Amino acid sequence: MMAPTQALSADRCARSAGLASKSGSSFFQGQQVFCRSAVVKSCGVTRRQSVLVVRSSQNTVIIGLAADSGCGKSTFMRRMTSCFGGSPKPPAGGNPDSNTLISETATVVCLDDYHSLDRFGRKETGLTALDPKAQDFDTMYEQTQAIKDGKSIDKLIYNHVTGLLDPPEKISPPKMYVIEGLHPFHDERVRNLCDVKIYLDISPEVKFAWKVQRDSKERGHSVESIEASIKARKPDFDAYIDPQKKYADIIIQVLPTQLIPDEKEGKVLRVRMIQKEGVKLYDPAYLFDEGSTISWIPCGRKLTCSFPGIKFQYGPDTYFGEEVSVLEMDGQFDKLEELIYVESHLSNTSAKFYGEITQQMLKNSTFPGSKNGTGLFQTMVGLKIREVYEKLMQKEVKPMV
Amino acid sequence: MMAPTQALSADRCARSAGLASKSGSSFFQGQQVFCRSAVVKSCGVTRRQSVLVVRSSQNTVIIGLAADSGCGKSTFMRRMTSCFGGSPKPPAGGNPDSNTLISETATVVCLDDYHSLDRFGRKETGLTALDPKAQDFDTMYEQTQAIKDGKSIDKLIYNHVTGLLDPPEKISPPKMYVIEGLHPFHDERVRNLCDVKIYLDISPEVKFAWKVQRDSKERGHSVESIEASIKARKPDFDAYIDPQKKYADIIIQVLPTQLIPDEKEGKVLRVRMIQKEGVKLYDPAYLFDEGSTISWIPCGRKLTCSFPGIKFQYGPDTYFGEEVSVLEMDGQFDKLEELIYVESHLSNTSAKFYGEITQQMLKNSTFPGSKNGTGLFQTMVGLKIREVYEKLMQKEVKPMV
Repeated sequence: MMAPTQALSADRCARSAGLASKSGSSFFQGQQVFCRSAVVKSCGVTRRQSVLVVRSSQNTVIIGLAADSGCGKSTFMRRMTSCFGGSPKPPAGGNPDSNTLISETATVVCLDDYHSLDRFGRKETGLTALDPKAQDFDTMYEQTQAIKDGKSIDKLIYNHVTGLLDPPEKISPPKMYVIEGLHPFHDERVRNLCDVKIYLDISPEVKFAWKVQRDSKERGHSVESIEASIKARKPDFDAYIDPQKKYADIIIQVLPTQLIPDEKEGKVLRVRMIQKEGVKLYDPAYLFDEGSTISWIPCGRKLTCSFPGIKFQYGPDTYFGEEVSVLEMDGQFDKLEELIYVESHLSNTSAKFYGEITQQMLKNSTFPGSKNGTGLFQTMVGLKIREVYEKLMQKEVKPMV
Repeated sequence: MMAPTQALSADRCARSAGLASKSGSSFFQGQQVFCRSAVVKSCGVTRRQSVLVVRSSQNTVIIGLAADSGCGKSTFMRRMTSCFGGSPKPPAGGNPDSNTLISETATVVCLDDYHSLDRFGRKETGLTALDPKAQDFDTMYEQTQAIKDGKSIDKLIYNHVTGLLDPPEKISPPKMYVIEGLHPFHDERVRNLCDVKIYLDISPEVKFAWKVQRDSKERGHSVESIEASIKARKPDFDAYIDPQKKYADIIIQVLPTQLIPDEKEGKVLRVRMIQKEGVKLYDPAYLFDEGSTISWIPCGRKLTCSFPGIKFQYGPDTYFGEEVSVLEMDGQFDKLEELIYVESHLSNTSAKFYGEITQQMLKNSTFPGSKNGTGLFQTMVGLKIREVYEKLMQKEVKPMV
């Protein structure tokens, strides 16, 4: 964190450099700000003047993503990395059961790799994988800190096939390091290393519908066994996973639709993007008018939608005692191209040009949730992360076309 | 009405004059359109070309305003004429009980002057003043037609004090002629003479609250007698007055608030401006996004409102089988200056500059309803009427500051 004296001198420098006064709050954690004298040529006149230099002291941006299993983390990852270009792949030549994904900019590690108890150890002790006592938070913290400091780490691999901890893989510090899993915000030290904290909050009804879709229709499990497994996980989920959402900067909440009474199949979704206020690195996105409460049914004279249509909502709220702005989408697009009409009424989206959200959604239209709010808000969070990355790294990410 | 051949030749002329093709529908009833050859100098080159000339063949614009007594017609009139400048006064040196008001641009006549039965005649026959059989529609039509044709009329005066028909007053054709009263749209011939038709639709609850306010608190009538009088009028009101609203271009509907449960005192109002679609002379005003359905609570981070706050709604609907756009305001402004914030999100208002609605409302802030939707929508209808007037008369009205 910048010392107050540095902020003051940067402020003075900004003024003497003829810039609009930059208050200390315009600089971010991980930035070095100093003043130097430079020769400046302006309108054909060469002169010496004070110049404000902002340099990133941070080599790696850390993103934390919390969610239960089967809640769309990997789709989120694909949408997010899509905003940076390149597609994430497992480490070349390593353990084929590695959970790590590496793209040009980002390395994504799964926090299951920090299980302190393997499947057999958990069976022995009666602890679930959701229990903090089954995690090694000290190593999780030390290794994440090392990555942030620009050092390579040797991280164990939790093998989801065998249930054992496999020998370590070497992870080099990337530009962006994403820790995803059950407990990214449980340990205060790890939590404080995260530059952006995202929580995917899937309501029990939708989680059940999704698990039935994946485990019953695709993997042949019985609906009863899925129900039993969810029920067994619930106490630890409620005790250890769910409470982390209060620490998140952005929560993507997925609920059953309110447009169709008693719809429980999870086919039509109401998705809410809960954005904490007062985050320094970006402004929350809003619909039409910042800070007021709005509901919007775009279907009408200009946009025809089939049943049950689409309804957006936006407004201020509180979330665990903190001020938030909530953007909500219930329903789904008939044609993804129509998103451009919605995009025209969104502001502070962190898009680099009008139409970028629609373009991203069209590019990734085969991903699950592309026609509903999960796809839209995952994309919008991806763009927010890009903005944070650019600010902290003082580096421009070219928009991916 | 323009003959099709004229429309065609105007269209051809417009094209040969190098203008964007103007379809027949761009011209209005009461306009003469013809083509003439003229010498035109453009970019230093002089040449002869076809020129499209649009000339108003109409001398007087006719506005019809329908409403029951005690429903805010006079406040509406004051707000409307305020958009044209000058304040309406009774005819100088005439019958002191004349119902007519004259300003620089507009003459407002009360249709009670076309009662065929005076108070005693009605008592004798048992007919109410609401009954069409107590009106002289032939004379109403002939005299309104005469005014539209630019001829003076000698119109009787219904004396509200004595209940008798007084000797006629001479009315000269003004630029704008407003007929207000119980039956402006009952007779098809009179209705068709109106260039704009407005209906003030006050719900029974609000009408009762207003009558109690005026007749009980200000005139000392008992609440029971007011209740009895409203009840006695209701059958004829429902049979003869209310059905006229289906003919109106704009209906201002005044209802009890929905923000406070069971509020019946008429202090907080929900007001709706129902605008017919497809009216050629103006476009309906809208909030945020034309043609979609929106609700908006501006109170929040940028605007603090005291209980019960303000809620706007906008959206397409149908009204007696016809397409309409409805703008709604429930609640009231704490400070009238805050209207500027609302105005910034309204479009197609017919205002000549951003802030004109707020300015008009501030200018007339002592009028009843200035802090709620009655004042806002009366002002907005006033500006729509000004737009119609300008188009039909081919004459600009300078904004009143």
